[in-house]
Amino acid sequence: MKAAELKTEVEEIPEAECLDILGQHSLGRIAIVADGQPQIFPVNYAMSGRIIAVRTASGSKLSQAPDTKVSFEIDEHDASAGVAWSVMVQGVAVDATEAFDDVSWTARAAAAPWSLAPGAKPHLLAIEPTIITGRRFQVRPASAT
Amino acid sequence: MKAAELKTEVEEIPEAECLDILGQHSLGRIAIVADGQPQIFPVNYAMSGRIIAVRTASGSKLSQAPDTKVSFEIDEHDASAGVAWSVMVQGVAVDATEAFDDVSWTARAAAAPWSLAPGAKPHLLAIEPTIITGRRFQVRPASAT
Repeated sequence: MKAAELKTEVEEIPEAECLDILGQHSLGRIAIVADGQPQIFPVNYAMSGRIIAVRTASGSKLSQAPDTKVSFEIDEHDASAGVAWSVMVQGVAVDATEAFDDVSWTARAAAAPWSLAPGAKPHLLAIEPTIITGRRFQVRPASAT
Repeated sequence: MKAAELKTEVEEIPEAECLDILGQHSLGRIAIVADGQPQIFPVNYAMSGRIIAVRTASGSKLSQAPDTKVSFEIDEHDASAGVAWSVMVQGVAVDATEAFDDVSWTARAAAAPWSLAPGAKPHLLAIEPTIITGRRFQVRPASAT
Protein backbone atom coordinates (compact mmCIF):
# COMPACT_ATOMS: atom_id res chain seq x y z
CA MET A 1 0.00 0.00 0.00
CA LYS A 2 2.89 2.31 0.58
CA ALA A 3 3.75 2.68 -3.09
CA ALA A 4 0.17 3.62 -3.89
CA GLU A 5 0.11 6.27 -1.17
CA LEU A 6 3.15 7.93 -2.65
CA LYS A 7 1.47 8.43 -6.02
CA THR A 8 0.22 11.87 -5.20
CA GLU A 9 -0.68 14.25 -7.99
CA VAL A 10 0.79 17.59 -8.91
CA GLU A 11 -1.80 20.14 -7.84
CA GLU A 12 -2.37 23.19 -10.01
CA ILE A 13 -2.63 26.28 -7.82
CA PRO A 14 -5.48 28.59 -8.92
CA GLU A 15 -4.49 32.12 -9.96
CA ALA A 16 -6.16 33.76 -6.97
CA GLU A 17 -4.13 31.60 -4.60
CA CYS A 18 -0.97 32.26 -6.63
CA LEU A 19 -1.53 35.97 -6.03
CA ASP A 20 -2.01 35.32 -2.31
CA ILE A 21 1.27 33.39 -2.21
CA LEU A 22 3.09 36.10 -4.16
CA GLY A 23 1.85 38.62 -1.60
CA GLN A 24 3.31 36.59 1.26
CA HIS A 25 6.88 36.59 -0.08
CA SER A 26 9.42 39.19 -1.12
CA LEU A 27 12.28 37.35 -2.85
CA GLY A 28 11.90 35.91 -6.35
CA ARG A 29 13.74 35.61 -9.65
CA ILE A 30 13.14 37.44 -12.89
CA ALA A 31 14.14 36.05 -16.29
CA ILE A 32 14.81 38.42 -19.17
CA VAL A 33 15.95 37.69 -22.72
CA ALA A 34 18.88 39.53 -24.33
CA ASP A 35 19.81 38.54 -27.90
CA GLY A 36 17.94 35.27 -27.49
CA GLN A 37 19.83 34.39 -24.29
CA PRO A 38 17.68 34.15 -21.15
CA GLN A 39 19.20 35.40 -17.93
CA ILE A 40 17.91 34.92 -14.37
CA PHE A 41 18.36 37.45 -11.56
CA PRO A 42 17.26 37.16 -7.92
CA VAL A 43 15.25 40.23 -6.96
CA ASN A 44 13.20 41.57 -4.13
CA TYR A 45 9.71 42.46 -5.14
CA ALA A 46 6.45 43.81 -3.85
CA MET A 47 2.93 43.36 -5.17
CA SER A 48 0.61 46.17 -6.20
CA GLY A 49 -2.58 44.33 -7.05
CA ARG A 50 -1.60 41.94 -9.84
CA ILE A 51 1.52 43.96 -10.67
CA ILE A 52 4.97 42.85 -9.49
CA ALA A 53 7.32 45.73 -8.71
CA VAL A 54 11.10 45.27 -8.75
CA ARG A 55 13.76 47.90 -8.04
CA THR A 56 16.75 48.01 -10.37
CA ALA A 57 19.96 49.96 -10.79
CA SER A 58 20.64 52.31 -13.68
CA GLY A 59 22.49 50.64 -16.53
CA SER A 60 21.82 47.12 -15.27
CA LYS A 61 20.51 44.41 -17.54
CA LEU A 62 17.17 44.61 -15.76
CA SER A 63 16.88 48.29 -16.60
CA GLN A 64 16.86 47.28 -20.27
CA ALA A 65 13.90 44.95 -19.78
CA PRO A 66 10.97 47.39 -20.28
CA ASP A 67 8.63 46.49 -23.17
CA THR A 68 10.04 42.95 -23.39
CA LYS A 69 8.53 39.64 -22.32
CA VAL A 70 9.80 38.51 -18.92
CA SER A 71 9.08 35.77 -16.40
CA PHE A 72 9.03 35.88 -12.62
CA GLU A 73 9.18 32.91 -10.27
CA ILE A 74 9.09 32.04 -6.59
CA ASP A 75 9.36 28.57 -5.08
CA GLU A 76 9.75 26.84 -1.74
CA HIS A 77 10.51 23.40 -0.41
CA ASP A 78 9.20 22.94 3.12
CA ALA A 79 11.14 19.86 4.17
CA SER A 80 9.34 19.47 7.50
CA ALA A 81 5.91 19.54 5.84
CA GLY A 82 7.10 17.54 2.84
CA VAL A 83 5.57 20.04 0.43
CA ALA A 84 7.16 21.83 -2.54
CA TRP A 85 5.50 24.55 -4.61
CA SER A 86 6.31 27.12 -7.25
CA VAL A 87 4.49 30.08 -8.80
CA MET A 88 5.43 31.50 -12.21
CA VAL A 89 4.27 34.79 -13.69
CA GLN A 90 4.69 35.35 -17.43
CA GLY A 91 4.23 38.89 -18.60
CA VAL A 92 5.65 42.12 -19.94
CA ALA A 93 8.06 44.45 -18.16
CA VAL A 94 7.15 48.14 -17.93
CA ASP A 95 9.24 51.05 -16.65
CA ALA A 96 7.32 52.21 -13.60
CA THR A 97 9.92 54.46 -12.04
CA GLU A 98 7.47 57.35 -11.70
CA ALA A 99 4.25 55.37 -11.46
CA PHE A 100 4.33 53.69 -8.05
CA ASP A 101 3.83 54.81 -4.50
CA ASP A 102 7.48 54.69 -3.55
CA VAL A 103 7.00 54.77 0.20
CA SER A 104 4.68 51.81 0.52
CA TRP A 105 6.78 49.75 -1.88
CA THR A 106 9.98 50.46 -0.01
CA ALA A 107 8.39 49.65 3.31
CA ARG A 108 7.22 46.25 2.21
CA ALA A 109 10.47 45.31 0.51
CA ALA A 110 12.78 46.69 3.19
CA ALA A 111 13.23 43.46 5.13
CA ALA A 112 14.42 41.42 2.16
CA PRO A 113 17.97 40.84 0.99
CA TRP A 114 18.41 41.71 -2.66
CA SER A 115 17.01 45.24 -2.43
CA LEU A 116 19.59 45.76 0.33
CA ALA A 117 22.50 44.91 -1.94
CA PRO A 118 25.06 47.69 -2.22
CA GLY A 119 24.41 50.29 -4.88
CA ALA A 120 21.59 52.67 -5.69
CA LYS A 121 18.52 51.22 -7.42
CA PRO A 122 16.54 54.23 -8.60
CA HIS A 123 14.50 52.44 -11.27
CA LEU A 124 11.27 50.59 -10.68
CA LEU A 125 10.32 47.80 -13.04
CA ALA A 126 6.73 46.59 -13.15
CA ILE A 127 5.78 43.16 -14.45
CA GLU A 128 2.28 43.11 -15.92
CA PRO A 129 1.16 39.47 -15.83
CA THR A 130 -0.37 37.71 -18.80
CA ILE A 131 -0.29 34.20 -17.31
CA ILE A 132 -0.01 33.25 -13.62
CA THR A 133 0.45 29.57 -12.84
CA GLY A 134 1.44 27.55 -9.82
CA ARG A 135 1.88 23.97 -8.78
CA ARG A 136 2.30 22.15 -5.53
CA PHE A 137 3.03 18.55 -4.58
CA GLN A 138 3.92 16.28 -1.70
CA VAL A 139 7.58 15.37 -1.75
CA ARG A 140 8.24 11.66 -1.58
CA PRO A 141 10.40 10.84 1.43
CA ALA A 142 14.00 10.15 0.42
CA SER A 143 13.81 6.94 2.44
CA ALA A 144 10.87 5.60 0.41
CA THR A 145 11.72 2.76 -1.91
CA MET B 1 31.12 55.47 10.98
CA LYS B 2 28.22 53.07 10.81
CA ALA B 3 27.03 54.30 7.43
CA ALA B 4 30.51 53.87 6.00
CA GLU B 5 30.79 50.33 7.36
CA LEU B 6 27.59 49.39 5.59
CA LYS B 7 28.95 50.40 2.20
CA THR B 8 30.19 46.93 1.36
CA GLU B 9 30.80 46.01 -2.24
CA VAL B 10 29.19 43.36 -4.37
CA GLU B 11 31.83 40.66 -4.71
CA GLU B 12 32.14 38.82 -8.03
CA ILE B 13 32.55 35.09 -7.39
CA PRO B 14 35.25 33.51 -9.61
CA GLU B 15 34.11 30.77 -11.98
CA ALA B 16 36.00 28.02 -10.11
CA GLU B 17 34.22 28.93 -6.88
CA CYS B 18 30.87 29.15 -8.74
CA LEU B 19 31.42 25.54 -9.83
CA ASP B 20 32.22 24.54 -6.23
CA ILE B 21 29.01 26.19 -5.05
CA LEU B 22 26.98 24.54 -7.81
CA GLY B 23 28.38 21.20 -6.69
CA GLN B 24 27.19 21.76 -3.12
CA HIS B 25 23.53 22.29 -4.03
CA SER B 26 20.85 20.33 -5.86
CA LEU B 27 17.90 22.68 -6.40
CA GLY B 28 18.00 25.48 -8.97
CA ARG B 29 15.90 27.11 -11.66
CA ILE B 30 16.20 26.87 -15.40
CA ALA B 31 14.94 29.56 -17.79
CA ILE B 32 13.98 28.63 -21.33
CA VAL B 33 12.56 30.80 -24.12
CA ALA B 34 9.48 29.76 -26.11
CA ASP B 35 8.26 32.17 -28.81
CA GLY B 36 10.23 34.98 -27.21
CA GLN B 37 8.63 34.39 -23.80
CA PRO B 38 11.04 33.29 -21.05
CA GLN B 39 9.77 30.75 -18.56
CA ILE B 40 11.36 29.70 -15.26
CA PHE B 41 11.08 26.20 -13.77
CA PRO B 42 12.50 24.94 -10.47
CA VAL B 43 14.52 21.78 -11.07
CA ASN B 44 16.79 19.39 -9.28
CA TYR B 45 20.17 19.08 -10.87
CA ALA B 46 23.49 17.35 -10.55
CA MET B 47 26.89 18.40 -11.84
CA SER B 48 29.06 16.36 -14.16
CA GLY B 49 32.21 18.44 -14.40
CA ARG B 50 31.04 21.79 -15.80
CA ILE B 51 27.83 20.27 -17.17
CA ILE B 52 24.51 20.68 -15.35
CA ALA B 53 22.17 17.70 -15.67
CA VAL B 54 18.40 18.06 -15.20
CA ARG B 55 15.77 15.35 -15.45
CA THR B 56 12.57 16.19 -17.35
CA ALA B 57 9.30 14.57 -18.29
CA SER B 58 8.32 13.68 -21.84
CA GLY B 59 6.26 16.38 -23.51
CA SER B 60 7.13 19.00 -20.95
CA LYS B 61 8.32 22.47 -21.93
CA LEU B 62 11.79 21.58 -20.72
CA SER B 63 11.92 18.59 -23.06
CA GLN B 64 11.68 21.08 -25.95
CA ALA B 65 14.72 23.03 -24.74
CA PRO B 66 17.54 21.08 -26.48
CA ASP B 67 19.65 23.17 -28.89
CA THR B 68 18.30 26.44 -27.46
CA LYS B 69 19.95 29.01 -25.21
CA VAL B 70 19.00 28.55 -21.56
CA SER B 71 19.97 29.96 -18.20
CA PHE B 72 20.34 28.24 -14.84
CA GLU B 73 20.45 29.92 -11.46
CA ILE B 74 20.86 29.15 -7.76
CA ASP B 75 20.79 31.61 -4.91
CA GLU B 76 20.70 31.75 -1.14
CA HIS B 77 20.13 34.28 1.59
CA ASP B 78 21.73 33.22 4.87
CA ALA B 79 19.93 35.53 7.27
CA SER B 80 22.01 34.52 10.30
CA ALA B 81 25.29 35.22 8.50
CA GLY B 82 23.90 38.29 6.74
CA VAL B 83 25.16 37.07 3.38
CA ALA B 84 23.31 36.69 0.07
CA TRP B 85 24.73 35.16 -3.08
CA SER B 86 23.67 33.93 -6.49
CA VAL B 87 25.28 31.94 -9.30
CA MET B 88 24.05 32.10 -12.90
CA VAL B 89 25.01 29.78 -15.73
CA GLN B 90 24.28 30.86 -19.29
CA GLY B 91 24.57 28.16 -21.91
CA VAL B 92 22.97 25.81 -24.38
CA ALA B 93 20.67 22.88 -23.58
CA VAL B 94 21.51 19.48 -25.01
CA ASP B 95 19.49 16.27 -24.95
CA ALA B 96 21.62 13.94 -22.82
CA THR B 97 19.11 11.18 -22.18
CA GLU B 98 21.51 8.49 -23.29
CA ALA B 99 24.80 10.22 -22.48
CA PHE B 100 24.99 10.28 -18.69
CA ASP B 101 25.74 7.72 -16.03
CA ASP B 102 22.18 7.39 -14.83
CA VAL B 103 22.96 5.71 -11.54
CA SER B 104 25.38 8.28 -10.19
CA TRP B 105 23.14 11.15 -11.26
CA THR B 106 20.08 9.66 -9.63
CA ALA B 107 21.97 8.98 -6.42
CA ARG B 108 23.10 12.55 -6.04
CA ALA B 109 19.75 14.09 -6.90
CA ALA B 110 17.64 11.66 -4.89
CA ALA B 111 17.41 13.73 -1.72
CA ALA B 112 16.04 16.85 -3.41
CA PRO B 113 12.41 17.81 -3.94
CA TRP B 114 11.67 18.59 -7.57
CA SER B 115 13.00 15.33 -8.97
CA LEU B 116 10.67 13.62 -6.50
CA ALA B 117 7.59 15.30 -7.96
CA PRO B 118 4.98 12.84 -9.20
CA GLY B 119 5.35 11.63 -12.77
CA ALA B 120 8.05 9.91 -14.75
CA LYS B 121 11.00 11.98 -15.93
CA PRO B 122 12.82 9.82 -18.45
CA HIS B 123 14.65 12.62 -20.26
CA LEU B 124 17.96 14.08 -19.18
CA LEU B 125 18.78 17.63 -20.21
CA ALA B 126 22.37 18.83 -20.09
CA ILE B 127 23.28 22.51 -19.88
CA GLU B 128 26.66 23.25 -21.46
CA PRO B 129 27.85 26.51 -19.91
CA THR B 130 29.14 29.40 -21.97
CA ILE B 131 29.27 31.94 -19.12
CA ILE B 132 29.31 31.22 -15.37
CA THR B 133 28.98 34.21 -13.06
CA GLY B 134 28.29 34.73 -9.39
CA ARG B 135 27.99 37.53 -6.91
CA ARG B 136 27.89 37.78 -3.14
CA PHE B 137 27.30 40.60 -0.71
CA GLN B 138 26.70 41.41 2.92
CA VAL B 139 23.06 42.17 3.57
CA ARG B 140 22.47 45.44 5.36
CA PRO B 141 20.58 44.83 8.60
CA ALA B 142 16.93 45.83 8.29
CA SER B 143 17.33 47.90 11.44
CA ALA B 144 20.14 50.01 9.94
CA THR B 145 19.16 53.55 9.05
